[in-house]
Amino acid sequence: MKTVIRPPKSHWKELAVRPLIDSRQLVGKVRSILDDVKTSGENAVRDYCLKFDAYDPSPMEIPAMEFRSAEEVLGEKLKLAIRRAARNIELFHRNQLVELPIVYISRSIQCWQKDIPIERLGFYIPGGTAPLFSTVLMLGIPAKIAGCQDVIMCTPADSSGRIHPAILYAANICGIKKVFRIGGVQAIAAMTYGTKEIRPVDKIFGPGNQYVTLAKQLVSEEGIAIDMPAGPSELLLIADETADPAFVAADLLSQAEHGADSQVVLTCMSLTFASRVKEELMLQVEELPRKDIALQSLINSRIIVLESLSEMMEFSNFYAPEHLIICVKEARKLSEDVRNAGSVFIGNYTPESAGDYASGTNHTLPTNGYARSFSALNLQSFMKTIQFQEIQADGLAELGPDVIEMAEAEGLQAHAQAVRMRMMKGE
Amino acid sequence: MKTVIRPPKSHWKELAVRPLIDSRQLVGKVRSILDDVKTSGENAVRDYCLKFDAYDPSPMEIPAMEFRSAEEVLGEKLKLAIRRAARNIELFHRNQLVELPIVYISRSIQCWQKDIPIERLGFYIPGGTAPLFSTVLMLGIPAKIAGCQDVIMCTPADSSGRIHPAILYAANICGIKKVFRIGGVQAIAAMTYGTKEIRPVDKIFGPGNQYVTLAKQLVSEEGIAIDMPAGPSELLLIADETADPAFVAADLLSQAEHGADSQVVLTCMSLTFASRVKEELMLQVEELPRKDIALQSLINSRIIVLESLSEMMEFSNFYAPEHLIICVKEARKLSEDVRNAGSVFIGNYTPESAGDYASGTNHTLPTNGYARSFSALNLQSFMKTIQFQEIQADGLAELGPDVIEMAEAEGLQAHAQAVRMRMMKGE
Repeated sequence: MKTVIRPPKSHWKELAVRPLIDSRQLVGKVRSILDDVKTSGENAVRDYCLKFDAYDPSPMEIPAMEFRSAEEVLGEKLKLAIRRAARNIELFHRNQLVELPIVYISRSIQCWQKDIPIERLGFYIPGGTAPLFSTVLMLGIPAKIAGCQDVIMCTPADSSGRIHPAILYAANICGIKKVFRIGGVQAIAAMTYGTKEIRPVDKIFGPGNQYVTLAKQLVSEEGIAIDMPAGPSELLLIADETADPAFVAADLLSQAEHGADSQVVLTCMSLTFASRVKEELMLQVEELPRKDIALQSLINSRIIVLESLSEMMEFSNFYAPEHLIICVKEARKLSEDVRNAGSVFIGNYTPESAGDYASGTNHTLPTNGYARSFSALNLQSFMKTIQFQEIQADGLAELGPDVIEMAEAEGLQAHAQAVRMRMMKGE
Repeated sequence: MKTVIRPPKSHWKELAVRPLIDSRQLVGKVRSILDDVKTSGENAVRDYCLKFDAYDPSPMEIPAMEFRSAEEVLGEKLKLAIRRAARNIELFHRNQLVELPIVYISRSIQCWQKDIPIERLGFYIPGGTAPLFSTVLMLGIPAKIAGCQDVIMCTPADSSGRIHPAILYAANICGIKKVFRIGGVQAIAAMTYGTKEIRPVDKIFGPGNQYVTLAKQLVSEEGIAIDMPAGPSELLLIADETADPAFVAADLLSQAEHGADSQVVLTCMSLTFASRVKEELMLQVEELPRKDIALQSLINSRIIVLESLSEMMEFSNFYAPEHLIICVKEARKLSEDVRNAGSVFIGNYTPESAGDYASGTNHTLPTNGYARSFSALNLQSFMKTIQFQEIQADGLAELGPDVIEMAEAEGLQAHAQAVRMRMMKGE
């Protein structure tokens, strides 16, 4: 972990560079899998599952029986934890239901907007080393609150064709009945183009490896909506002398264990504090089962010593981190200056893990600086806003002349005519 | 305009096909302009302006004097219309400011979210046949309400280097001071990569021809946010016998005059009504300056005769039109069944032109079926949602065991450790 002391602003840009993998050379490969599934449907999906993941996915849809046995096999303590996390996530996201009043532009001109659930959603839940049942909750619960009717989920099985029971348990809690044991680019293709069993969806959500991420990007160019562009996970931490170096080190490691390409950045105000965190890092990393990944990630990571609270916040806003932890004396006050971030954790007893699992906030967040313009996943991500207006004849009499004037100035006579014709009749 | 009578549902898919131009063969050309500007900055921008638009854009930034003379040269009636439209757009969009309460997950666990304006916006306003000053209002007013601090606008000049005064007048009303006389792919590139005068932006808004649209799509793959994917404009109209065939024809034409690739679809319940609308179309189109464009567009367009109100609404939701006009006896009631549309116009005295210019709603809307998952442009498009949470030691004591249980089940020990360490200290 490199330490940089009081870098001038001209160096900030290079300090904010992410360890991105250029996936452009994968485009051809990914596109050919997409095209195969588009052309050959479920047969292509099956072939790729056999080829890449070494199992036969048939039958692709998980039978109801497997949901039931998942519930039986899972420990009570974990089931309770999942249910309590689900309750908190529901509380937080239900609060986002908003119904705006009708706007009376005048007595006879009413305009309003309405949030309508997106009809068909497809969730992708990665397999691999960790069974991400927490992501099932983060996608499934807001979808349920939004009122989305038709939700399917794809997730790769292990080599015996089995899905982790916690994933099925979480899906069941969210009311997701249609789960398909397919993963990778072929799953994204199946949700985009459809197969015999899978209807094409309107929007695809969920994390994935670089192939899945690229596949989501490519299908988004064809008009399928996706949750957000993805990149490796990251954490920036703002600390002063009131922060606990052991907690800080633990938070940095909890991000670093995600993957070798994760990035953690610590900003603080003294070299002494930086050294104490480094010592703690070296102690704590030894205890971790994912030690090698964490150490690899720390190579991409840095400690930046800055002058003041406000300079640390300025750097954070410049970096636009996915996760931001603020451990300073008046953390809540400083948090009011956050302009760019995905999710903000305030104070010494608010570890990122709390929000990753159970406090109620969403853990699907913009990475790679996208927090400058993209939102943390929220209820609105599962809906679209439709506008409505109703104008009476006298309302149009009032508004009409302005419309005609503007339409004619833009050279659009038929636009003017649609108003003029009604005004003549309305008289 | 082709008439289709009671098509079976199996034919709906082909009836919903849009007249899309495949722009993939333009990728190489567009990307090379983007790359040139990325490498050579303002010099490349100038060269492309000279090459494609036949004017020298230097100085690129419009001087304050030109804003003042725009105000002087513009007619009072048009200025008044623009100001009144601006007031309505402000009323409608200000209504969308929402502040959600803090959620107390428990006494010592607080979670909340905040909408923060996106800092740097770039607007693209096309030149060409029509000076789209209305689009300046539709982008500039919500950006002002959202509190976006740094807004720039690019728009191509005419061959003498001049910008239409209505565009500058509208920009001024929205508080946009930085307008650059550049258009085309080079303008999108300048806003993405920056030049000597232009700082790179976080999000690009605005319509454009197929080159500009493709450029926006390509830079969005590099992490610049864009307003929404774009396609040709379109209108679907639902009419029963209470609709006025002359109004219906006028509305269809107001859409058809946009471009030869615009699509208009009329659904109604009788051939008699369809014929009356066709007669009116032929009469009215003769009077239009943009007659040739409108006739061209009508070739892509269709009248679909269906059985019932509910079947017409079902087709509309299937088609997911950008603009939907409902002219039936109980139009407002039927509008409650809209699931997929950009903007909905209810009743005989609510022409689409009203919303295009002055009623207050936004006219930047999802086309090409994107209304299934994308929203009409609204205040939220100019902001991003950031999450916050603050947990006290006793709150973590309560939540912690569930976090540990879930993190360990996902195989993420460092996540569990970040909580465990605090729980030990907090005791």
